[in-house]
Amino acid sequence: MRKEKNLKPMLSPKSVAIIGASRNPEKVGHIILQNYIDAGYAGKIYPINIDATQIMGIKAYRSVLDVKAPIDLAVIAIPAEAVPEAMEECGKAGVKAVVVVSGGFAEIGKAGLQEQLALTAEKYGMPTLGPNCLGVMNPRSRSDTLFLPTFKISRPEIGGVSFMAQSGAVGSTVLDMISGEGFGLSKFISYGNAAHVDESDILNYFMKDKETKVIVMYLEGIKDGKAFMKIARKVGRAKPVIVLKAGKTRAGSQAAHSHTAALAGDYEVAEAAFRQSGFIIAEDISELLYYAKIFASEAQPRGPRVAIVTDGGGAGVLMTDAVASSGVLKLAEFSPGTISALKKAMPPLVNARNPLDLAGDADGRRYAEALSILSSDQNIDMLIVIVLFQTPGADSALAAKLIEYKGGSTRPMVVVSIGAEYTEMHKRMMERSGLPVYDSPRSAAAALAALYSYSMFRNRKSLSAP
Amino acid sequence: MRKEKNLKPMLSPKSVAIIGASRNPEKVGHIILQNYIDAGYAGKIYPINIDATQIMGIKAYRSVLDVKAPIDLAVIAIPAEAVPEAMEECGKAGVKAVVVVSGGFAEIGKAGLQEQLALTAEKYGMPTLGPNCLGVMNPRSRSDTLFLPTFKISRPEIGGVSFMAQSGAVGSTVLDMISGEGFGLSKFISYGNAAHVDESDILNYFMKDKETKVIVMYLEGIKDGKAFMKIARKVGRAKPVIVLKAGKTRAGSQAAHSHTAALAGDYEVAEAAFRQSGFIIAEDISELLYYAKIFASEAQPRGPRVAIVTDGGGAGVLMTDAVASSGVLKLAEFSPGTISALKKAMPPLVNARNPLDLAGDADGRRYAEALSILSSDQNIDMLIVIVLFQTPGADSALAAKLIEYKGGSTRPMVVVSIGAEYTEMHKRMMERSGLPVYDSPRSAAAALAALYSYSMFRNRKSLSAP
Repeated sequence: MRKEKNLKPMLSPKSVAIIGASRNPEKVGHIILQNYIDAGYAGKIYPINIDATQIMGIKAYRSVLDVKAPIDLAVIAIPAEAVPEAMEECGKAGVKAVVVVSGGFAEIGKAGLQEQLALTAEKYGMPTLGPNCLGVMNPRSRSDTLFLPTFKISRPEIGGVSFMAQSGAVGSTVLDMISGEGFGLSKFISYGNAAHVDESDILNYFMKDKETKVIVMYLEGIKDGKAFMKIARKVGRAKPVIVLKAGKTRAGSQAAHSHTAALAGDYEVAEAAFRQSGFIIAEDISELLYYAKIFASEAQPRGPRVAIVTDGGGAGVLMTDAVASSGVLKLAEFSPGTISALKKAMPPLVNARNPLDLAGDADGRRYAEALSILSSDQNIDMLIVIVLFQTPGADSALAAKLIEYKGGSTRPMVVVSIGAEYTEMHKRMMERSGLPVYDSPRSAAAALAALYSYSMFRNRKSLSAP
Repeated sequence: MRKEKNLKPMLSPKSVAIIGASRNPEKVGHIILQNYIDAGYAGKIYPINIDATQIMGIKAYRSVLDVKAPIDLAVIAIPAEAVPEAMEECGKAGVKAVVVVSGGFAEIGKAGLQEQLALTAEKYGMPTLGPNCLGVMNPRSRSDTLFLPTFKISRPEIGGVSFMAQSGAVGSTVLDMISGEGFGLSKFISYGNAAHVDESDILNYFMKDKETKVIVMYLEGIKDGKAFMKIARKVGRAKPVIVLKAGKTRAGSQAAHSHTAALAGDYEVAEAAFRQSGFIIAEDISELLYYAKIFASEAQPRGPRVAIVTDGGGAGVLMTDAVASSGVLKLAEFSPGTISALKKAMPPLVNARNPLDLAGDADGRRYAEALSILSSDQNIDMLIVIVLFQTPGADSALAAKLIEYKGGSTRPMVVVSIGAEYTEMHKRMMERSGLPVYDSPRSAAAALAALYSYSMFRNRKSLSAP
């Protein structure tokens, strides 16, 4: 039976000690200290450096033992050989959690050094992340151990999606991508070699964390398969979990083994476990974001029947193909009331059928009228609204109408818009208002299909619960 | 036997008459005239308007019959009912080609009016595009009939990709997307109802056009299946053709029928014809662009063996999965010479194996050294270089090194970079220098797999030729 690790002091620390804080801007410890100051972190900061009494205007200490005040989180950014002693001092000082960003452990063959780190963490009951990781980021608490400048990785806004990644590079790439999306971040954890805190601990923490609405995972290996399965089953029932696992093919699995010295394991076994737990399986980084976006909207579908509204006939056909190919979604049949109302309200060119092609000259008013008619149709469970902003009538006023409509509707609704600058501008406008925008018919269909499948999974589970 | 239609006067006209040119900025004829002036079109422009003697400072005429000078192209932008008479006058005036942008024909049930248009075109041997289309755009000749402002659709640069689309909305969307890519446009044709010039005529013209290196098609229906098959077989041998056909599913096919009143036909039949002709089949608009990008680079693969170089281990694993899943590509085995050279030149952390993980601190110099070693390895046919610009060493100097290396290499090479602004900046930098950049491992693998499959198809065809 594994003991639960409390990660709260790591993610929402009231005080942070930065071991290896330095005046030298090249040093990781300098960048981390700078980030805490720049982000406006409200807690206490204790730079720890054997040679300095003050760094960046903040009183520095030789050791955490000299601080003589409670320390929630210690970030360790010193050479690997010095880490065990620093960990001991953290333990003695009563530090509540540790993030070891330093590399130079199992990933270069020094398994003994890593084992020592894990034992110290365990001895003092001190949840320890890493080593060889980017650490954590929490936009609410402004705790941010990422030692990468913000011009390289845009930091996302506050939101409900929590994300964990073994790999620092993939982690920071996804974080950077999230910053371009309308949904925000709850917590980010890059856990590296997972000497002490592993994917199961983090999954458990995300499950219990009230600020986390959606969990996104990038995995290479799974450290403790049994523990993972146990927690996965519970989490899947509680919150949507989106997972991308590398090492799907034999070649990929071999590459993963070489990368993290962790056993990638049998992908089929992992996949079966994910499915049993109701996880949403992504096949690529872009899919992680597609799925995160729809689940972050917290929309609840009543059924699989989709209405498509479009200003481009061709795009409507491609969307219909994508819906029909999803294996889950169905094209809604408009009710007789909808059909006669559309016939009355729409110009003669518009056929009152699904997909509803509002024609290339549709503007905000026509979209709003059509959507208002579809509102009361009980045959429609979800809405896909295609807006090609290249057409003459598509502009900011139309985007505003969609935002307004979404505000008054409980049905899941997504927008599909494809294009360059003018489109991107409107995409950002809609996403900031909580309207998910997709850049292809296939991704929109995949997202709604996942949303519906997960709601079915949850309903099944709750029915069969004791 | 269908007669060949010469589309050159339509795409590279020495003189253009705009029938329906107007002072009223709301009118399509106004926007088209304005576009020709703004684009710096070098040929003669003849505004045709029954009520004006001058429009935007250019002498106007009551009819093309009054021009008394050779007219290569007449663009017709007047109400549908007036089109037949205008066509007659074009024929009598010896106009060489016509683009009818006006709608109001078969798409609203007026098949007779459309038939009349086709008969007049045929009578005078005057290739006629449309009706109900956006028309043509050729960045070389600066002939541009698109009646949509440039802030809505960015116009692409000059390049080797020619693109045709039945649907005006999908056409303009793809055109807009192309403007954001590094490859440029040769010709764009939106052919609408295809009363006279259809997909087979355009395909034939693109095949013979020396400026067209790659053909991209968006189809809903195929008007003349037999003619299409015949030309498709020839074109496929001559140039790469990338095709997206809507109406893949029964529901999609029904929607397509309602949209263009053209029979979408059996998708399986069309797909079989595409495959026999060596066409590259896209499943979504984004795939059209992925494939166009790699073929526009005109790279010639010698074989399917891929080397992967990365600064992120996780991304290397995902890339390996994508290569192994492609069904076509293989992971190259580094030669003993490569392995020993890598061991000598790289830091100890770097494993001399494929995927080659240069580690998160790799910079331009390390990439350049590694690529230089891989250059002489005869086991490598293609290169995938992953650069996660979130890592500390990835910057403009690294991008410049890759551009430099690509310049001296004959092997197909693509870059995979995923991220927000800092990544986008470098993506544009590399693409402008002819280095294709992909935003996911899967799209990069799909592109290289298509490139290799097509080269195999061409080799087979040339061997079996009489």
